Amino acid sequence: MVNLERKILDPWSVEEVEDYDRLIEVFGIERVTDELLKSLPFLNRYMRRRIVFGHRGLWEIVKAIKENRPYAVMSGIKPTGEFHFGSKVTAEQIIYFQQLSPKAVAFYAVADIEAWEDNGLPLKVAREIAVDNVADLLALGIDPKRLYVYRQSEEERVLRLGYVFARGLTYNLLEAIYGEKHIGMYMSALIQVADILLPQLPDFGGPKPTIVPVGVDQDPHIRLTRDLARKYNKEYGFVPPSSVYHKLQRSLTGSGKMSKRDPMSYLTLNDGPKLIETKIKRAFTGGRETAELQRRLGGRPETCVVYQLWLFHIDDDSKVGKVFEECKAGKRICGECKLELIELLNNFLERHRERKERFRELARELLESKKDI
Amino acid sequence: MVNLERKILDPWSVEEVEDYDRLIEVFGIERVTDELLKSLPFLNRYMRRRIVFGHRGLWEIVKAIKENRPYAVMSGIKPTGEFHFGSKVTAEQIIYFQQLSPKAVAFYAVADIEAWEDNGLPLKVAREIAVDNVADLLALGIDPKRLYVYRQSEEERVLRLGYVFARGLTYNLLEAIYGEKHIGMYMSALIQVADILLPQLPDFGGPKPTIVPVGVDQDPHIRLTRDLARKYNKEYGFVPPSSVYHKLQRSLTGSGKMSKRDPMSYLTLNDGPKLIETKIKRAFTGGRETAELQRRLGGRPETCVVYQLWLFHIDDDSKVGKVFEECKAGKRICGECKLELIELLNNFLERHRERKERFRELARELLESKKDI
Repeated sequence: MVNLERKILDPWSVEEVEDYDRLIEVFGIERVTDELLKSLPFLNRYMRRRIVFGHRGLWEIVKAIKENRPYAVMSGIKPTGEFHFGSKVTAEQIIYFQQLSPKAVAFYAVADIEAWEDNGLPLKVAREIAVDNVADLLALGIDPKRLYVYRQSEEERVLRLGYVFARGLTYNLLEAIYGEKHIGMYMSALIQVADILLPQLPDFGGPKPTIVPVGVDQDPHIRLTRDLARKYNKEYGFVPPSSVYHKLQRSLTGSGKMSKRDPMSYLTLNDGPKLIETKIKRAFTGGRETAELQRRLGGRPETCVVYQLWLFHIDDDSKVGKVFEECKAGKRICGECKLELIELLNNFLERHRERKERFRELARELLESKKDI
Repeated sequence: MVNLERKILDPWSVEEVEDYDRLIEVFGIERVTDELLKSLPFLNRYMRRRIVFGHRGLWEIVKAIKENRPYAVMSGIKPTGEFHFGSKVTAEQIIYFQQLSPKAVAFYAVADIEAWEDNGLPLKVAREIAVDNVADLLALGIDPKRLYVYRQSEEERVLRLGYVFARGLTYNLLEAIYGEKHIGMYMSALIQVADILLPQLPDFGGPKPTIVPVGVDQDPHIRLTRDLARKYNKEYGFVPPSSVYHKLQRSLTGSGKMSKRDPMSYLTLNDGPKLIETKIKRAFTGGRETAELQRRLGGRPETCVVYQLWLFHIDDDSKVGKVFEECKAGKRICGECKLELIELLNNFLERHRERKERFRELARELLESKKDI
């Protein structure tokens, strides 16, 4: 069991991509406190390691769980390519909130409209990628009986709500939130608002608490969504959705965060053993100039992206704690550490790919079926 | 038979709401020529009286008719209230182009998204008005076997295409066309583009000539649509739609054009006999100060909105020609002229309402059925 008190140099602390304290102060994101974590039935590693550091309105979900009331967990993926390890964090968070209560229902949007507006990806191309993405989600362990997946471009209710929300929003307002963008980008933001409020439509049982697990870079969407939920409360009964924010993974190359623009910056669930090996072997570490120096001074796991992969993706607390201690003590050399991680990840990915193949047909069926849950 | 040569003071000329010659010069609208009219199988009164004064690409439709190829005729109505005499002109133009060829298919959009964006009319309220509007269209004589009607908010393909077209369009571009508006208004313009291109989707048999009969104030939509049809020609095969422009009816109060903002400015298909009488009795005329003066100098039908009602809505050429001549010669006094028109219009409206009641159920069925034609 990991101590929930976060210290500066414990195994659960790494160099940050963003200044998370600043985000909390400036944007009014609430801190994830011990009290909050203790009131949840159980924690996954993102929660217990404080990778999830902030939230808005998570107490609403805690209450729903305690009172055995229905709630939704909602997030999605932009189908521009393979399922990367950032999408994996979001997916595992959805699964976690689905598992917290038998009354939880999961919603997963394949954001093909966003992929079109932002990346010019034709909807036709996104169609097949969507099947692959949903197969990954299923293989990661989501319960398909309490799951609604859809492509934005085919979910009439979401398409419609985007137009509803557009009324009265000025360019100045949207430019202040998202910067100077073309109209399609603003509509892509509004369709995400629609995604998040979809679980509250009558077809899905009406207004309910909804938790949206996302990277903290998505907070502007959440704020806009909460504003619009209030604006349309009278007509639709929407209650403002809740959110949990996880930290962003740093690029394997050591600068910035993982980005789809640079394939060497991230891992995907489709990467074969050789590619995983290459990417991790080339990854930036917190190691010293020489093995000799490392043995003397110890490594710097807190700035090491390889250690960050351990922290985000290896579930065994005692093992990860040991990696940290050995590194700090100079007893772990980067080459060995990388080989060990490569083996663990490739084992996981091999099993994942087997599961995924078995889920491909179900993924297609879920996407093609227009049946509500 | 009316002489197609338009003279300054023939019965088919009235004081204009817009400077139509300027529109033709500045925006490159093409003139409706004798040659064009002669190449059509037959003319309705809007065509033979040059109320339809301009077009873009009408020759494409003439060719399709000659070669017995399919084409679409597309327009719509904003369901903010009753069917007024401006919507009647558009509807009768749709019916005309449907009748020109057995290969013509009509599309009629109930623009409930536009009514929301522009007027804040909730979609739920627009639902019932839509049934009423479509019953009017049917009663006016459209062939329901070659008709596809829909509410924008329920036509997934149209909702989706609006998002497709939004990509890459800047605020500056849309502001230049439509002025400074909120994002919803721009999306309402893009969904109208989607309406117009809907007949060219594979579900409706793919790319084909399409004629859009509209008031000339809608030309900015047509130009944007023709540009976007070209932009997406490669992916969707769209060909630029054609359009015909009819003149706008002046307000019964004498200033400006008929406007939904002022109920006394226009007639509707739902107006009862008493209301028709009141509105026409109060209408602005081209009469002189006294009956005596009128007998001596003659009336001014070319500036008379009552005469304009004769011109737009009474089909009998010899009768309308007679009204004009008698007025000019001082043989027709405004009071009598109004009474005669009131009787004709109320007879028409009485028959129309009977027909309409018989079509109400069909209207509902057509709107509820998602079946493509």
